[in-house]
Amino acid sequence: MITFGCPDRTGIVARVSSFLADAGGWIVEAAYHTDPDTGWFFTRQVVRADSMPYSADELRARFAEVARALSAESNWRVDDTGERRRAVLLVSKEGHCLYDLLGRVASGELDVDISAVIGNHDSLAGITRAHGIPFHHVRFPSGDKAAAFAEVRKLVDEHDPHAIVLARFMQILPPDLCAAWTGRALNIHHSFLPSFVGARPYHQAHRRGVKLIGATCHYVTADLDAGPIIEQDVIRVDHGDTVPDLVRKGRDIEKVTLARGLRWHLEGRVLVHGNRTVVF
Amino acid sequence: MITFGCPDRTGIVARVSSFLADAGGWIVEAAYHTDPDTGWFFTRQVVRADSMPYSADELRARFAEVARALSAESNWRVDDTGERRRAVLLVSKEGHCLYDLLGRVASGELDVDISAVIGNHDSLAGITRAHGIPFHHVRFPSGDKAAAFAEVRKLVDEHDPHAIVLARFMQILPPDLCAAWTGRALNIHHSFLPSFVGARPYHQAHRRGVKLIGATCHYVTADLDAGPIIEQDVIRVDHGDTVPDLVRKGRDIEKVTLARGLRWHLEGRVLVHGNRTVVF
Amino acid sequence: MITFGCPDRTGIVARVSSFLADAGGWIVEAAYHTDPDTGWFFTRQVVRADSMPYSADELRARFAEVARALSAESNWRVDDTGERRRAVLLVSKEGHCLYDLLGRVASGELDVDISAVIGNHDSLAGITRAHGIPFHHVRFPSGDKAAAFAEVRKLVDEHDPHAIVLARFMQILPPDLCAAWTGRALNIHHSFLPSFVGARPYHQAHRRGVKLIGATCHYVTADLDAGPIIEQDVIRVDHGDTVPDLVRKGRDIEKVTLARGLRWHLEGRVLVHGNRTVVF
Amino acid sequence: MITFGCPDRTGIVARVSSFLADAGGWIVEAAYHTDPDTGWFFTRQVVRADSMPYSADELRARFAEVARALSAESNWRVDDTGERRRAVLLVSKEGHCLYDLLGRVASGELDVDISAVIGNHDSLAGITRAHGIPFHHVRFPSGDKAAAFAEVRKLVDEHDPHAIVLARFMQILPPDLCAAWTGRALNIHHSFLPSFVGARPYHQAHRRGVKLIGATCHYVTADLDAGPIIEQDVIRVDHGDTVPDLVRKGRDIEKVTLARGLRWHLEGRVLVHGNRTVVF
Repeated sequence: MITFGCPDRTGIVARVSSFLADAGGWIVEAAYHTDPDTGWFFTRQVVRADSMPYSADELRARFAEVARALSAESNWRVDDTGERRRAVLLVSKEGHCLYDLLGRVASGELDVDISAVIGNHDSLAGITRAHGIPFHHVRFPSGDKAAAFAEVRKLVDEHDPHAIVLARFMQILPPDLCAAWTGRALNIHHSFLPSFVGARPYHQAHRRGVKLIGATCHYVTADLDAGPIIEQDVIRVDHGDTVPDLVRKGRDIEKVTLARGLRWHLEGRVLVHGNRTVVF
Repeated sequence: MITFGCPDRTGIVARVSSFLADAGGWIVEAAYHTDPDTGWFFTRQVVRADSMPYSADELRARFAEVARALSAESNWRVDDTGERRRAVLLVSKEGHCLYDLLGRVASGELDVDISAVIGNHDSLAGITRAHGIPFHHVRFPSGDKAAAFAEVRKLVDEHDPHAIVLARFMQILPPDLCAAWTGRALNIHHSFLPSFVGARPYHQAHRRGVKLIGATCHYVTADLDAGPIIEQDVIRVDHGDTVPDLVRKGRDIEKVTLARGLRWHLEGRVLVHGNRTVVF
Repeated sequence: MITFGCPDRTGIVARVSSFLADAGGWIVEAAYHTDPDTGWFFTRQVVRADSMPYSADELRARFAEVARALSAESNWRVDDTGERRRAVLLVSKEGHCLYDLLGRVASGELDVDISAVIGNHDSLAGITRAHGIPFHHVRFPSGDKAAAFAEVRKLVDEHDPHAIVLARFMQILPPDLCAAWTGRALNIHHSFLPSFVGARPYHQAHRRGVKLIGATCHYVTADLDAGPIIEQDVIRVDHGDTVPDLVRKGRDIEKVTLARGLRWHLEGRVLVHGNRTVVF
Repeated sequence: MITFGCPDRTGIVARVSSFLADAGGWIVEAAYHTDPDTGWFFTRQVVRADSMPYSADELRARFAEVARALSAESNWRVDDTGERRRAVLLVSKEGHCLYDLLGRVASGELDVDISAVIGNHDSLAGITRAHGIPFHHVRFPSGDKAAAFAEVRKLVDEHDPHAIVLARFMQILPPDLCAAWTGRALNIHHSFLPSFVGARPYHQAHRRGVKLIGATCHYVTADLDAGPIIEQDVIRVDHGDTVPDLVRKGRDIEKVTLARGLRWHLEGRVLVHGNRTVVF
C-alpha cells in the first residue's frame, strides 16, 4: 500500500500509475484527493502484493525516486498490508469502548492484535484477560503523574504499536508522549468537537440544551481535544433526557465512532494535513 | 390548547384532566414532562374546540383558577387553535430559507399566513411578491442601524405576528428588539451550536476539519447565538468538501431545521424553561 | 408501572390520574397516545413505589376496577419495577450481538439478568461463561429440529424470562414456540423490513443496489419477519461496499437496534396493537 | 469530463492518466472504482477545459482510441462541462418537489436550465411561470393515455434535455418512453425501495408500522419502481404519526433525495452498471 501527498501539478497520477503498471501491479483500491485551498495532492493505492515482483522493502526503495521527483519529501509511505497491525489500549473505569473493541476483535471484524490493555484502575482487568490479552494496572497518584506516564510509555513502546488507543482513558497525555506518539495516538472524546472541550461534556451539553449529542475520534496532540479529527457522529436527544441518559445514549456513538476511526487508521486510510484529515 | 408549567407535586395531572373531563373536553393530544433537575412540571393539552361548552376566553378565565392552585403563576397559556397564525420573515440576500418557507406555505404544508417579508436587500422582492406577499426593503447603512431597526420594528409590530423569523437575516438584533420579541423571534444559525458562534461558521467548520456540519434553530436573545435551542440537525461532509460545498450542503439542513422549529413554535409545542426548551 | 389500552373517550386520563392521585402516587413518567385510526387509547404510568401505600399486588387488584370501567379488558398490566428482569439469549455462530449485550450488562448499562445463553453451535460458549453466565449447546440436526426446539423450550421456560432474545439465532421458531412466547420473543433481522425478508438479506440488498442498509428489531410471530416492529435503524453504504462490507457495517446497526428494542421491552415501553407498536 | 467503464486489468489508470498528462490536462477531480463481483472498472475524470489543447470534440475523437484499446466499447463518454445542462420536469398536483427545485435553481444552487414544466394538472402553472419557465398542461384522460404521452414526449424531446425529472408525476411512463429516455429519466419514489413499491407507499408504511420512512431517486425503467437506485434517504417516525404526518415528513426526504440525485446525474457522477449505480 502506497500513501503519499505532494504539491499538485499535472501528471502525478500518470507518473504513479505508470510506475505501478510497469511493475505489473494490480491496483485493488485507489483514491485521490486534491485540496484546492492548499494546492496539495493526496493518494492511496492498494496493490495486490502477489501481483508485484518486489518485496515491500524493494518497492519502498524504488518508489523513493518517484516520490522525490514529485517533491513528496517525507509525505509518503509504503506499507506491507500483509503485516499484522498491533494496538495498545489505555482505559480507565468506563468499559463500554473496551468491551466493544474486544468484541470486534474476537468476532474477527477488526483485524488487529491488541497487544496489551493498560488501565489506571484495575476494574477492566477481568474482561481483558478473559480475551487472552495482558492487562497492566498503572496507578496515577493525583499529585505526581510523571512516573505513571513513564511506566505507561515503557509498557506501550515495547510493543511498537501501530495504534495507541485512549478508549475513555480520562487522563491527559503529557506533551512528550503526544510528541512521541504523533499520528499513532487516537482519542475518543464524548462530544461533537469543537463543542464541549474538556471535562464532563455531557453535563455541558445538557446545560446548553442541545438536541443532538456527539462523539469525536481524533489524533492526540498537545493541544487538548484539538487534534486532527478522524471521525464524528451524533445521536438525537430531547428534553426528557437527563445527564445519565445522555451518558448512556452517547456511549453507542462513542463506540462506533472510535471503532470506525481505529479501523481507518489501521488500514492506512487517514492522511493528516495540517490540522485536518483526508480519510480515503 | 392549554400549555403550562408549575412546580412538580402529586395530583397535577389529575387536577388538569379532571377540569377538562368535567367540561366534556375531548383531549386530542397530551404531553407531560417532569424535569428532575429543576423539579418543574410541564404539560400541553390539545382539546377539540367543539367538545367544550366554552369559548377560548371563557376557558382561559376558568382555567386561571386551576393554574393558581398549582402555582403556575404566569407560566400558562390558553390558545385558540382555530385562530390563524401570522409570521413576518426577515431576510437578506441568501434566499434558500425564504424559498423553502414560501413553498411550504403555498403547498399547504405549513399552516401560517406570512404577513410580510422584510429584507435589508431587495433581491428577494420578486419571489415574495409572486407569492402575493408584501415585501419591504429596509436599508441598513453600515454606520447607523438604529433607524433601520426602528423601521423594521414598526413594520413587524403592525402585524402582531406569532413568529418573527430571521431567515438568514445576517443582522444582529439590538437588545430592545430581542426584549420586545422574547419568545417570538426565531433564528436559524448555520452551525451546530455551540460550535462556531458568530460570523462565517462554515469557514470555521472547514478550518477545524469537522466531519459533520449542522444548523440550529433557536429563540433570539440578547446573547448572540446563545438563546434556547428549539431544533438542530447535521449532515455528513468529508475532506473533499470545500467551503462552497459546505455552504451548499448546509442549506438543506438549515431549511428543514428552521421549518421544523417554526412549525413546532406555531403549534405551541415549544416551552422555554431557563435556557432550555421542552418540545412536545 | 401501569400500562394499558382501551377504547378512547373523554375522561380516561382524569380517571386514571385521579386514581393515582387519591393514593398519593408520585408519577415519575407518563405517556399517552390516541390512535385516531382505531380510536384506541394507550398510556404508561411509572409511579414511585414508595409513594404509594400499596404493594404491586394490591395496586393490581384496585386498578382492575378502573380498567373494567374503561373497558380495557385484558389490555392492561401492573408491573413491579423493583423486580429484576430476566432474559434468555438464543445465538448461533455470529457473536456481535451477544458480545454487545454482554458488554452492556457487564458495564451496568442494561439492567437485566441474562439467565442463560443457548446456542445451536458452541463457539460462543467461552465468552458467555467468562461473564459468569450458563451456556447451553443444543444441536439442530438438519432433518429433525423438533427435539432440539423442545429442549430449547425447556431450557428457556425454566427461567420464566421477561425476554427471549434471538440474537442472530438463524433458526426459525416453530409456531408453537411463537405462540408460547408471544410478546416476549424479540428478533433482530438484518434488513430494513419489509425489504429483504428471509435469508441473506445483505446479499439481497447488494443485488438491488440500495444506498442504505438497515436492521429491524421485532416481536417474533408465526409469520416470518412480519411481527410488530419495535425499532429500526439504517446506515449509509455505497457502490464501493461489497457484501462483506455490508455485513460488517450492518452489524453496528444490528447491535444498537437490538439493544434499544430490548431495553424498551424490558422497561415496559412497548405496547402491541394489532401488528404495530406504541413505544413510549 | 471523461467517464467510462471497461473490464478490469492492470494498467488502465496508467493508460488514461498518461493520455491526459501527455495533453497537459489538469485533473480537477478523479474517481475510480473496481467492482470485484463483475470484474469491471469505472472512472470519472474532470479536466480543466483550458488546460487542454483540444475541443471536446477533438478530445472525444482522440480518446476513442484509448477506449478501444481498453475494450470500453460503448461504455464511455466525453462531456463538455462548459455546456449548460437542460432539464424538463413532469409534475402532477403535489408541488413540494417542484417548489424545491425551482428555489434551488433560482438561488443559483442547482446549475441547470429548466426548459419546461409539464403537468397533468395545471395547479402548478402559476409558480412555474413566476420563475419565467414555460408550463404545459397535458390532460390525461383515464381511458386513453397514449395521446397524452405522445404529446408529453413531443414537448420533452424538442428540448433534448439532459434530464427528464418525474417530480411526483404520478403517471407510469409507457415502455416506449422508458426506452427512449433510458438513463435520462429520473423518478422520486416516496418510499425506501424495494419496500412499498407502487401506489400509496405512505399508507403501506403506516400499516406495516415501520419506524423510519424513506424516499428513493432512481432511473426510470419499464419495470415499475425497480430501476437503478441513485440515492435514498430516510427520516424517523413513530407511533404518533398518522398517514398525513408521514406524507408531510416524507416530503422533506423526497425533496433532498431528488435534488441530490438530479445534481449527481447532471454532473455526470452516476454510472449505471446492470441494475446498480456507481455514484462518484
